[in-house]
This record gives sequence, structure tokens and C-alpha cells, in this order.
Amino acid sequence: MILCDIGNSYFHFYEEGRIRKIPVEGSIRDYEEKRVFYINVNERLRRKLFGLKEWIDLEPHATLESAYQGLGIDRKMACIAVRDGVVVDAGSAITVDVMQDSIHLGGFILPGLAAYDQAYQSISVRLAARLRTAVALDALPQNTVDAISYGTLKSIVLLLRDTMRSKRIIFTGGDGKFFARFFENSVYDATLVFKGMQRTIEKNGYLI
Amino acid sequence: MILCDIGNSYFHFYEEGRIRKIPVEGSIRDYEEKRVFYINVNERLRRKLFGLKEWIDLEPHATLESAYQGLGIDRKMACIAVRDGVVVDAGSAITVDVMQDSIHLGGFILPGLAAYDQAYQSISVRLAARLRTAVALDALPQNTVDAISYGTLKSIVLLLRDTMRSKRIIFTGGDGKFFARFFENSVYDATLVFKGMQRTIEKNGYLI
Repeated sequence: MILCDIGNSYFHFYEEGRIRKIPVEGSIRDYEEKRVFYINVNERLRRKLFGLKEWIDLEPHATLESAYQGLGIDRKMACIAVRDGVVVDAGSAITVDVMQDSIHLGGFILPGLAAYDQAYQSISVRLAARLRTAVALDALPQNTVDAISYGTLKSIVLLLRDTMRSKRIIFTGGDGKFFARFFENSVYDATLVFKGMQRTIEKNGYLI
Repeated sequence: MILCDIGNSYFHFYEEGRIRKIPVEGSIRDYEEKRVFYINVNERLRRKLFGLKEWIDLEPHATLESAYQGLGIDRKMACIAVRDGVVVDAGSAITVDVMQDSIHLGGFILPGLAAYDQAYQSISVRLAARLRTAVALDALPQNTVDAISYGTLKSIVLLLRDTMRSKRIIFTGGDGKFFARFFENSVYDATLVFKGMQRTIEKNGYLI
């Protein structure tokens, strides 16, 4: 079975336990004639995908109990994969969702790490520096690079701690592995969205 | 006595208890021949200011005990005005500095509220929305606007709470008044930088 999670920059194909990333401008000829179950948040690709007769959009089949208006299909799929816990997808944005007994209780969004870097740069050339990921979070910074690194990381980590309480965190996304090390009760799972897609297919057996 | 705090966008003149803002491209003819004590973080204005014979740069006279490398003169002046407490200047950036017994213990920097708005916008058009300042911070958001507002505000507020512990916070800057309402043990003082400048002048009596 081939799954595909389509974002604004990449196709993420998942087949036999392996993920393959292809830029949205790249060629997906290898997959075009195959049966592919996909989700897509990229508006510009909607038409092209519609023309691929073997491709099946899982979005109409995804079910998640939630009062949240406008939950993106990628967030939804990651949540479907988790019965209890805080789901954190740390990519270009950091989305945070709370699951309890398979019910989505709500969530929030922070800028991704690269977006923080850009935000400081846009404020002043004096703040244009890449985040220092090794900055200590238990001592007050004594220079500019540490000051912006501490501000970014500690504000995110404290909000995640406040959110998780006794729950565990399941990280996914490009920066998920990095953040996981700040939390004892956490795991990193690069395939979380695909697990939600698989579960959706299993629940809707007629799809296969 | 006339004081002037010069940033990247404005001259802030302070005279007889009142602040007057003039854009850096605007005319300061009213002040050019007068005795003005100033601080300046705007590199492009350095030459012009040097030509104003009655103007005195307070930067070389400011003294603050600190191990911090590269503390901006505006942050330094705000700190000089505070013996004990957390100094928060919430403007285009949010700078946070901890003072204890008139010693600067260190500090950090967060993007300003407008920079967060811009950061979300740069990530995706779906996240392009202005922060909703009235969002509740004690309930998980159920829509996108609340999700980005909660992420922004709660991450900042929790980090400030973690920093202040038993200390009080002294807010200044354009968004300082807004943030002050989240903290019981806080004050807002639009003139904090000027107070530091006044103290610097008093300590260096020969300047007057």
C-alpha cells in the first residue's frame, strides 16, 4: 500500500515502512499510475491530483470527534493515530493537539523554529542569527544569540509542559526529534500522520 | 531638561513629563539648537547626531554592572532605572532583563507581537490573521485565530511568569500596557528608559 502526505513544499510518500520526500515541483511519474491513498493541504495541487485516477483522497473518510473548526487534514490524521496524549507536529509551524480517549480536546499553533529565526531577522539586523540549539535553559543568557535562542526554546518548552501535565507527548515533523529531548515522557514518530491514514483505511475497509 | 531616546523608527523626546514621537524621517528642527541628552540605537542617524553641537550622547556615561555582551543602550537605560525586578520592553522585539540589587543578571529576547503575526503569515495564508488579544488562556482553542493567539500569548506569559518568580515586572514599550494585565505584581511605565537617562545624568553631575 502506498500512502502520500502532501504539504506546501513536499510530497511525502510512505511505502513498506519507508518515507520518500519529493519536492512539489518535482516528478512523481513513478507513482502516477499506481493506487495511492493521499491527503493534501496544498491548494495549488488540488486540480492535478484530481486528474490521477488511481489516487484516493482520504480526507472525506477521516473521522475525529472534535469541536475545533478548520483542523487541517494532516493534523487530523496525526490525532487519529493517538488515543491519549499531546500530539506535536514541529515543522514550518508547530501544531499542538490534545487527545483524550480518542477525542480531540482542542489545540494551538506556534511558529516553527525557522519562522522564529526569520522573525528576529525582520525586526533588526542586530538580531539576525541562527538559533543556538545547545543553549542552556536553566541560566539567564549573557549575549544576543543565547538571548534569542533561550526566548524561542524556553517559551515553547514551557507551554508544552503546561499543556501535557501528566500526559505523554508524541512528536512528529522535522524538528520533532530535537524537541523530544526536552521531555522525559515523550516519543518521536516520523510516521504518525501515516498511522492515522492507515487507521482511516482500515476503518473504511471498502476503500481497498 | 530635554531627553531623547532614538530607535529605528522614531525619535522619542521627553520634556517636562511629556513624550513626543517624531518619525526618524521627520523634522527635529525644534530641537536641533537646544541642549538634548540622547541615546541612539539607529546606525543610520549616528553621523547626523554627531553634527548637533548641543546634543550629548549619554551612552559613554551609562554604567550597569552586567556580564552580558552587547546589551543595547535602550535596554541598559531601562535597567538602570530599576533596582530589583524584571524589566520587559514590549515593542518590535520583547526584551526581558532581570535586575537584582542594581545588578543585571542577564536577559533574553522574544519577537514582538507584530512579528509573531508576520511569522504566521509567512508560514501559510491559512495562518494569516491578527492576534485576538481577548483569547482565553485557560481553555484549549477551537479555531485557527484562537490557536495562534493562544500560542503566542501563553508562551510569552508563561516564560515571563517563570522568570519573575517572586519579583515584580516593570513593563514599558508599546505593548507593555497590554501585557501588564496578565500579571498581578506588575506596573507599566512608559518613561522607564528616560528614568534611566535621568539617573545617568544625576550620577554624572558634570554633564549639566
